[in-house]
Amino acid sequence: MNQIPFQDYYPDHMAHCYGCGRLNEHGYQIKSVWDENNPEESVAYFTPKPHHIAIPGYVYGGLLASLIDCHGTGTAAAAAYREAGRPMDSEPALRFLTGSLHVDYLKPTPLGVTLEIRGRVKEVKRRKIVIEEWIVAEGVITVRGEVVAVQVPEQLVEELLENTGK
Amino acid sequence: MNQIPFQDYYPDHMAHCYGCGRLNEHGYQIKSVWDENNPEESVAYFTPKPHHIAIPGYVYGGLLASLIDCHGTGTAAAAAYREAGRPMDSEPALRFLTGSLHVDYLKPTPLGVTLEIRGRVKEVKRRKIVIEEWIVAEGVITVRGEVVAVQVPEQLVEELLENTGK
Repeated sequence: MNQIPFQDYYPDHMAHCYGCGRLNEHGYQIKSVWDENNPEESVAYFTPKPHHIAIPGYVYGGLLASLIDCHGTGTAAAAAYREAGRPMDSEPALRFLTGSLHVDYLKPTPLGVTLEIRGRVKEVKRRKIVIEEWIVAEGVITVRGEVVAVQVPEQLVEELLENTGK
Repeated sequence: MNQIPFQDYYPDHMAHCYGCGRLNEHGYQIKSVWDENNPEESVAYFTPKPHHIAIPGYVYGGLLASLIDCHGTGTAAAAAYREAGRPMDSEPALRFLTGSLHVDYLKPTPLGVTLEIRGRVKEVKRRKIVIEEWIVAEGVITVRGEVVAVQVPEQLVEELLENTGK
């Protein structure tokens, strides 16, 4: 795979997210790309740590929700650039935050394997993009989810950062 | 507050959850109780760490989803004992896992303050309990969520643990 992950295009002040920020050394650093074999779908891989459990041997639902969350906002950003016919490093930047998150836990997700998180654009309306997602463990879909990602004006991001003195 | 938190009643093999297990030293160890001033509501307090951010100064949505998740299943278990008129240390144990999780992010949640996570039973049907929840930061509701918690037969828990050799 030669693609640069969506999250690696995030500018520095948007790159501290615990789920997907390349500058958050304590975080999950999720990396998402378009599937080269099926460009309508995005994909990310993640291997939970031994302590990321709900019960021994099975992955914690809150982590699975985090994977759905960040893979969703990443896919939404990539989809917005694609929709606009623009490369992801072009300006002005298109930023997305999570408006809402829904996760259905279909089966227990086994620990000790690399999980595949997949996403597909379900709906694009103005500043809102809905991404449907699913998580696959050893060939079995264990989780389905949906993220409503909301495009955030750059000005709001700047205001938020100013308020915190960053 | 003199109550024992709901999660401290979980038996050892259910006490390793990354969100709420007292035996998971890397986890969040969320503790929930009934609100003494309003026994229809449960409450938990949590102070995110500096790296639990979405953007600098604001709490990561995946962590907020985790708080909703574990406070929800904890409240569901406590509600099931209450409904049955039984103390939480009585047998057989009533165990709940998350069937589905929904989170609406209403506003950015500020970092650096203790968050209050509140829950209320919305619906009880046979083995399913729906908990509605909200998160308060400095007096403002920033997140609303809902957990559908599913009662798990003790036998299934034992099978899952046997499968993983625990």
